[in-house]
Formats: sequence, C-alpha cells, structure tokens
Amino acid sequence: MAKLALGELQTLAEQALAKAGAGAAMAAATARALVAADAQGLVSHGVSRVPQYAGHLKINRAVGSAQPKVARAKGGAALIDAAEGLAFLACELAVSEAISRARENGIAFSGVCNSHHFGVAAYHLGPVAAAGLVGFAFGNSPSAMPAWGGKRALFGTNPIAAVFPRRNGPPITIDLSLSEVARGKVMVAASQGKQIPLGWALDKNGVPTTDAKEALAGMMLPAGGVKGAMLALMVELMVCALTGAHFGFEADSFFVNEGNRPQIGQAFIAIDPGALAGNEVYFERVETLLAAMLADPEVRVPGYRRNDLAGQAAESGVEIPDTLIKQLRELAA
Amino acid sequence: MAKLALGELQTLAEQALAKAGAGAAMAAATARALVAADAQGLVSHGVSRVPQYAGHLKINRAVGSAQPKVARAKGGAALIDAAEGLAFLACELAVSEAISRARENGIAFSGVCNSHHFGVAAYHLGPVAAAGLVGFAFGNSPSAMPAWGGKRALFGTNPIAAVFPRRNGPPITIDLSLSEVARGKVMVAASQGKQIPLGWALDKNGVPTTDAKEALAGMMLPAGGVKGAMLALMVELMVCALTGAHFGFEADSFFVNEGNRPQIGQAFIAIDPGALAGNEVYFERVETLLAAMLADPEVRVPGYRRNDLAGQAAESGVEIPDTLIKQLRELAA
Repeated sequence: MAKLALGELQTLAEQALAKAGAGAAMAAATARALVAADAQGLVSHGVSRVPQYAGHLKINRAVGSAQPKVARAKGGAALIDAAEGLAFLACELAVSEAISRARENGIAFSGVCNSHHFGVAAYHLGPVAAAGLVGFAFGNSPSAMPAWGGKRALFGTNPIAAVFPRRNGPPITIDLSLSEVARGKVMVAASQGKQIPLGWALDKNGVPTTDAKEALAGMMLPAGGVKGAMLALMVELMVCALTGAHFGFEADSFFVNEGNRPQIGQAFIAIDPGALAGNEVYFERVETLLAAMLADPEVRVPGYRRNDLAGQAAESGVEIPDTLIKQLRELAA
Repeated sequence: MAKLALGELQTLAEQALAKAGAGAAMAAATARALVAADAQGLVSHGVSRVPQYAGHLKINRAVGSAQPKVARAKGGAALIDAAEGLAFLACELAVSEAISRARENGIAFSGVCNSHHFGVAAYHLGPVAAAGLVGFAFGNSPSAMPAWGGKRALFGTNPIAAVFPRRNGPPITIDLSLSEVARGKVMVAASQGKQIPLGWALDKNGVPTTDAKEALAGMMLPAGGVKGAMLALMVELMVCALTGAHFGFEADSFFVNEGNRPQIGQAFIAIDPGALAGNEVYFERVETLLAAMLADPEVRVPGYRRNDLAGQAAESGVEIPDTLIKQLRELAA
C-alpha cells in the first residue's frame, strides 16, 4: 500500500485512460468519478477499474473519441447519447441537463443510451444536491439476476440512488444495488473456500446454492426476493425502454476484455422543492425526519460515512495497493 | 359469501361512504378504487375498508366535504392539497395533472399532501398507462418499520408501483410495499397461534421475534434488510418533504377510529416515451424484454394475474362475505 494525494491519483488515472484512447474530457471525467469513489472508500468502483476501462478502450468496446450529445429534448425530458464511450462524460451532460430543466420545469428526466458502466450511482447526483434539488439515479448492468420465477440471469443488479439536500451539511445519500448481496462477497467466500448463506445466489441451473464457486458460475438473487426482482425489472424498463439502451442480457460482462459495446442505459431525475411545497417546508420536513431517526442511538444518516471518508481523503490522500499503482503507471507511461 | 356484480358493489360502497359524510364525488371515487381492488382479488384493500373509512368520516378524521385542489404548479410539477379528505379524489386529480403535464413537458410529478390511505398504489396509474405514458406511484403510511439500526417504528410500509404500457394488451404493472411481508400475514399467524420466521418482525423493544403476537405489538422489518429500509426512507422524503405531508410517525394508525387526521402524502410521476427515444423504440424494447422473460416457463408478466381476475369479476361479479355485506347495508341505510 502507498498513500497518494487525490490530485496525484487523478493525474495518474487520467493519463492511463488517455493513453488507452480516451479523449481528454472523457479521461478527466472518468478519473474524477473513480478517484471520488476511492476517496469515499468504495474501492471496487475506484481506480481499480482503470485497467478494465483501458482494456475496453484499447479493443474499442468503449469508443475513446465518443462525444456525448443531447439527442432529443422536450421540456423536462432529455435523451443523451453516450455514443458508445465510457459513461461518465455522458452522465455529466445528462445531470447538467436535468438540473437546468428541473429549474425551468419543476422536474426533469435525463436518460442516457449507448452507455457503459457508470460506477457509483450516487456520485452523479452530487451536482443535483449542490443545486438544491432532490435527485434520483438509476442504471442497468450486464445480466446477473433472474426474473422472478426464472432460472436464467436477465437483469443487472441495477442500482438505485437518491440525494436529498439539507439546509446545512451534506445531503442525505441513498445508494443501493438490487441484489441481496454484492457479487464481491461471493468472490471473497469462494477465494476463502467458505460457504455462502442460502438466499444469496443460484447455481448455473437456477438451483439455490451455498457453494460460492457454483454461485459465481450461476447468478445472484434479488434483495427481498420478489420485491427486488420487481424493482430490477422496473429499472431495466426505465433506463432502456425510455432511452433505447440495451438490456442487461444484451450486454457482455465488463469483467472480460472480449465482448460487445454494452450500450446499457442510465436515467436521472431532478426535482425542485421550490416548485412544490417550497424550500422552507422541504428543509423543515427533512430535519424533522432526521431528528426522529437520530433519536435512535444506532441510526446513522445515510451517506455520511462516505462523506466523512471523502473529507479525510481530501486532507491526507488514499491508500492504493502497490500492484495497482504499478499497473496504472505502466498504463500511463 | 354472496356474489355481487361490480356495479351493485359500487352503489353499496358509495352509499355507505356518502351516508358517513363523504361528498358525492369523494364517495364515488373511493368506491371505484375499492371495488377495483376487490375485482383484482386484493380484498384487504377492497370494500372491506368501507367501515374503516366511514368511521374516520363520522368522527372527522377524514373530512367528507373536502375539495382537493391544485395548490401550486409549475411546468411539470404540481402540488395537490387533498384537504384532509379521503385520498382517492385527490389522487385522481393528481394523476390527471401528471398526465397532461407529462404530455406537455415530457415528464411530470404530482405530489399530494394532507392526504389519507390511498389503497392499492398501482390502481392510480391505470389512466397513466391508458394515456400511453410510463407511470410511478409512491405513498407513505402510518409508521410500521424502523429506520436501519433503529428500534422504533418510524417509516410506513411505503408502497412503490410502476406501469409500463404495451402496444397490445394490458400494461406491465409492478406494485410492492417495502416490508419483508405484509402485516396481514403476521395477523393470520397470530390468530392461528403459529410462529413467524425470523426476519419478518421485531417485538416492541426492537428485538427480532418469531412470536406473531409480539410482532403485532412491535414492528415489521423492511424487505431485503438495509435496502428496503433505505427505499422506505427515500419514499418518506419524496412524498413528504416535497409536498409538506406528514411522515408515517406523525400519523395515527388507520385501524382505530380515534386518532389524528393522517395528512400523509403520495406522489405520482408520468413520463412520455414519445419525448425520449420515441414510441416505436419504447414498444420494441418492452416486447424484447418480455419475450426474454417469458422464455423461462415459470415467469409471469407482472400484473397480469390481477388483470385476469378483474376481467372475470367484470363478467361474473365478486364474492363478498355475508357479514361485510350486512355491515355495508347497515352503513348505507
């Protein structure tokens, strides 16, 4: 492990992505998102993804020269074409459209098609909260979970995120994927030769399993059973049917180099409290609920742990494994 | 049990509600929603609720003369004040606003404040799907679940519903509440002296329990653990902070006569596929996903069972328990 300042990590990630073919704006936007994830302690979505993204850029699974653009717009609705590049620059454009359109219309929806992995869902909502708006983010991902009653992976783990700004202090930030547990937990169990609890996964024939290796060859189960499965279906339809993006089962895994351009989708919603009950009422309601929650001594404000870690990282940098630094330096060279 | 035609049941429910003090439009809208629930086989949200609603009207927990109105509007956003009446008339207005504003703006959000129990969440989205729009519904309810890590009930079971229209045939309809199981299942277990599985509920001290009676005195657990808890928080904030409605913990139970006017909240979102990737793309995507889902022989289209039951009920009526019919006739007399 070595400690790197965030700026140093940003430069390194940016150079590695640019070297692999990403345009300057795409490389910068992507690196910003990945470094922010590392700063928040979300290492699986941090610069550890650079080798994967660089691999996709090199074989043209992701188009480095892609210029995201507003393909269509009407009032509060905008469709952004990510043009088969990495997702982050397109998501920045989508969120910026959502903010300005929500200010004008009270609410806005930005969908993104022809996209790629968008990392930490809540990351994209930072500017929404900073603008004093309530925000929601949705995305699909390569198939990992069956439909309810099904025996084949169809839906992605399909994250849902939300931000609710506070008058003082960071926003309340909700961010979850719809599988019962993250696939990473199964990978850890498999590498340690441990069993996993029933209810986490199915084997490749769709039979419930406690064998971590069989689970990895099979599929994850949705959180809360039928409820997670229905929400995953809802997200697939929201981010694909409205935008024309590919479903999870049409996109090849991100974890291999070979494969198609994923062309998956994302969606962002921004809502202006000032257009509804008004900002005074909004802030009073938020603080009233938080006060009731925090009266229970073990309840935490969702998102504050990430935020605290990001604050520490901004001051003192983040620990990055030596092998990863070496890999990034080679890619950047 | 006796079989009643839907029209007959509508008249009976409408008369009972009007007799308890509901204005004609409120009685009609409420009866329509309850009869539709019975027709879909959702008896816990059907006319079995009439005695409860009538009780609330009689003691003025729900204001029978309330006239819901658009309190504020801007572009795609509208705030509807239910004026402390029953919820259904206000929700009809909210949905009608959402439809016309989504046609104009691409997307619309209608929030409802000063509201009451809104029954089956997906019911309200029927007109949205019929208008060719994608729809979402959210509502909170008197507190029934703790915040994550908490030991006191704070959030309602907070339903989420969605409709996705198809080119031919009824819409895909998703409708779920965020508790691991419905409280009704615990009531059945308690009445039969049976245990409940761990993970369904906590006792009144916030300790996990398998005792159904202790669970009824305690609280329900969220679906999927922390994920359901976070989604329940998201719904509370969406339907209350944006609208000024009361949180679940500020509203007294619906299952007693005594208590405050609940003043809870609802929210509806409508999105026009024509404003984004277009209707052709939208319908192609929906059918592509359904075909993939239905290739698995045990997968069903969400919402189709309800729809089939409603079709049967329209032809041959619904079975209503004799005691309930007697009760409705007494209320209507």
